[in-house]
Amino acid sequence: MAKELKELTSREENYSQWYNDLVVKAGLAESSAVRGCMVIKPYGYAIWEKMQRALDQMFKDTGHENAYFPIFIPKSFFSKEAHHVEGFAKECAVVTHYRLKNDPNGKGVVVDPDAKLEEELIVRPTSETIIWNTYKNWIHSYRDLPILCNQWANVVRWEMRTRLFLRTAEFLWQEGHTAHETREEAMAEAQKMIGVYKNFAEEWMSLPVIVGHKSDSERFAGADDTLTIEALMQDGKALQSGTSHFLGQNFAKAFDVQFANREGKLDYVWATSWGVSTRLMGALIMAHSDNNGLVLPPKLAPIQVVMIPIYKGAEELAQMTERLETIAAELKQRGISVKIDTRDNVRTGFKFAEYELKGVPVRLAMGPRDLAGGTIELVRRDTLEKETVPQEGLVEEVERMLAEMQHAIFEKARAFRDRMITRVESYEEFKRVLDDKGGFILAHWDGTPETEELIKNETKATIRCIPVDAPEEEGVCMISGKPSHRRVLFARSY
Amino acid sequence: MAKELKELTSREENYSQWYNDLVVKAGLAESSAVRGCMVIKPYGYAIWEKMQRALDQMFKDTGHENAYFPIFIPKSFFSKEAHHVEGFAKECAVVTHYRLKNDPNGKGVVVDPDAKLEEELIVRPTSETIIWNTYKNWIHSYRDLPILCNQWANVVRWEMRTRLFLRTAEFLWQEGHTAHETREEAMAEAQKMIGVYKNFAEEWMSLPVIVGHKSDSERFAGADDTLTIEALMQDGKALQSGTSHFLGQNFAKAFDVQFANREGKLDYVWATSWGVSTRLMGALIMAHSDNNGLVLPPKLAPIQVVMIPIYKGAEELAQMTERLETIAAELKQRGISVKIDTRDNVRTGFKFAEYELKGVPVRLAMGPRDLAGGTIELVRRDTLEKETVPQEGLVEEVERMLAEMQHAIFEKARAFRDRMITRVESYEEFKRVLDDKGGFILAHWDGTPETEELIKNETKATIRCIPVDAPEEEGVCMISGKPSHRRVLFARSY
Repeated sequence: MAKELKELTSREENYSQWYNDLVVKAGLAESSAVRGCMVIKPYGYAIWEKMQRALDQMFKDTGHENAYFPIFIPKSFFSKEAHHVEGFAKECAVVTHYRLKNDPNGKGVVVDPDAKLEEELIVRPTSETIIWNTYKNWIHSYRDLPILCNQWANVVRWEMRTRLFLRTAEFLWQEGHTAHETREEAMAEAQKMIGVYKNFAEEWMSLPVIVGHKSDSERFAGADDTLTIEALMQDGKALQSGTSHFLGQNFAKAFDVQFANREGKLDYVWATSWGVSTRLMGALIMAHSDNNGLVLPPKLAPIQVVMIPIYKGAEELAQMTERLETIAAELKQRGISVKIDTRDNVRTGFKFAEYELKGVPVRLAMGPRDLAGGTIELVRRDTLEKETVPQEGLVEEVERMLAEMQHAIFEKARAFRDRMITRVESYEEFKRVLDDKGGFILAHWDGTPETEELIKNETKATIRCIPVDAPEEEGVCMISGKPSHRRVLFARSY
Repeated sequence: MAKELKELTSREENYSQWYNDLVVKAGLAESSAVRGCMVIKPYGYAIWEKMQRALDQMFKDTGHENAYFPIFIPKSFFSKEAHHVEGFAKECAVVTHYRLKNDPNGKGVVVDPDAKLEEELIVRPTSETIIWNTYKNWIHSYRDLPILCNQWANVVRWEMRTRLFLRTAEFLWQEGHTAHETREEAMAEAQKMIGVYKNFAEEWMSLPVIVGHKSDSERFAGADDTLTIEALMQDGKALQSGTSHFLGQNFAKAFDVQFANREGKLDYVWATSWGVSTRLMGALIMAHSDNNGLVLPPKLAPIQVVMIPIYKGAEELAQMTERLETIAAELKQRGISVKIDTRDNVRTGFKFAEYELKGVPVRLAMGPRDLAGGTIELVRRDTLEKETVPQEGLVEEVERMLAEMQHAIFEKARAFRDRMITRVESYEEFKRVLDDKGGFILAHWDGTPETEELIKNETKATIRCIPVDAPEEEGVCMISGKPSHRRVLFARSY
């Protein structure tokens, strides 16, 4: 493994390879025998679990309940909402049969042709259709509203080009689906949830994000408005990290979900949906990590502190272990997760490299001189700064350092992101910045899909969002010269 | 709804209908538009979440880590383990295509015939095959062992006759998959995990279970030994509630997973797998509930205490709410979940019936006399005993009552289960007890699958298990008269 560690491709050499190496070598995920589907390994899953825990609590704190809906959706459901069918239900896994049988001509099993389904079932790419078909039975009067449901689930979209976490055929996510009496209430919900995502990204992932509206062509299929959080990766490409959709009455109309309102009249229900996925793992990895491996925000690190005794002989090990276990117990009492690594079959240097690769925020190493002198070596992962500190007061120091690191990597990512936002006045400049610098570009746009399409075709850059806090500013579209009232945010993206 | 509540079928009238009514009317789950797939509603999911939380912690406390493996399994994988293919991979969902397209002859979508998979994918009915195919790459030396993974996932088995929670095409479960150096270590793991399940069933679900080995014919397809926990429902039928399998080297051989052992020689890895599912929800519901609705063990109740003010006018409501909120805050401080129901659009009697239906363990009602006199009405769900108690000391009283209820419903279920274990000496007696009394029957059996099959065909009773604590006892098989060394446990089952 020490050898493998060194083989981590550097970001400068090949960013994409660096990312893939990192995911595999840090033990986060790997490809499986099924094309496009990944295996999330224990260390990667432990990070995802921490994300889930935090998000789930935020959803509950905002009044949502979890539920679970079927993985299969009847094919006909996708045709019910006109825009939805265009955007979804094309590249997806189709179940056509429900039985295998022994191959009459040899060994193995074959699909039983007698077990063909009358109507094919689609493995959910998203659940609006099956959920709104269910809500129809739950909603009769305004007294049944709002419905504030979330589900944690797996979904499948048959992607041709897949990348671990960023784009996989199967991925894990949560999808919130809410139903409301009024347009205003549904819009407020969609806004509230993009706010939850922004807070989660910033406070837990140390990931600065820009909140905005998607343009018409980038909007979710079936939505009247899509809010997004957009993050910037170290290679200057944007990553859409979460979306929250105001669905209007589109799905209520498609599935005939009406309710008696406070005036006693029938009306269609207003809807939102919102989701984040294991794609966030990709964002987390790419936003902070370096050529030595992962850099994890302490709040999401499965192991926050690793302790390594550097010893000769069993007696020294016993003495060090006793000291380290005392410190570990104190750290655990403060809710800090600790691992003591006493393996004797790998060298200390190997251990150091391994925990750097895995992004453990704080490393404590104790040598003979530390044991004798009551000190310990303390290294923080983000800066790799090394210092020898007294064991006395260590617990407070570690606690302080973890909090500081959570903040510091956010500030570092924000400073980078801010440096990488460029305002441009012409299409020439736009193209030059895209190629030479990358990052986000704020430019004027005439609001038409034609211009958007042209830019996308010529530069591969898309409108990431129309930022919610974009100030009004008169200008002209860099392509058409038509008037524009605010700048929008462009970037090449994942 | 008050009307609907009354329509809960009684157990005596139709046990099966009572169960189904209860699941639907208490808001736990319902059927979906997809045949055999259920929707788990928020209240039902909240119970499942509590189960998950507790089990997950028990798995982690015994050294396991979570991971995630693909939902799809290549068809050919099922043919690799000879027994496994017989038992699984027959009634399952088969994905044959990966794209839909717009119907050229009209509206809607059709399966794109050009998007046929080269090899069909099976939606996992269980994951031994895909996981052992993965473990092959993880395991090289004894230093890579043990691997102690668990996954929380959905699985699909195409059942023809489905019942909410008890038998559904899609269900949620966890599946542990472990890999070990030695036979002994793997066997110890399988035993440890059935012990975890027993503890969970008894301590969290208040559900007494009998631990035992499955007979050869009831064993998991691909296992050398299957351990099971068997519970008894109120109708005298058994319910298999969790299983833990010692898989020997069967999957290691099927997927060629070898490791260099401590002697430096190649050997096949030893394996276990173990799982419990949303079927436990069925067990929980059927074990304790009554004709008024659910009875939930307090540790798994989403709402442990409900408070209902019985008031006239806004002023009285305000006074009561203030008192109730103070009490609620104290309860919450002790980790007890509380709901205050101040709805004014339904009557008190309706509320009482609703919370009985939903199995809320403790109901507190405050009327004007209570407000004036510093008392409150306290009702516990399992016995429906009602008493008026002082508000002073209430929090301690509620805490005590919750603990007592957790214990009491376990004892009640155990007493019933014990009464329902009958020792019989002849097949005549066996059949008479089965029909007249039901429950578990301890009888001598000659150990052959032929006898087991005959009994099953004639009586629909199966060997639930050979209890691990069955004492040695010489006897003769009730069918063949051949010698038997211990009694085995029979029952009709779900």
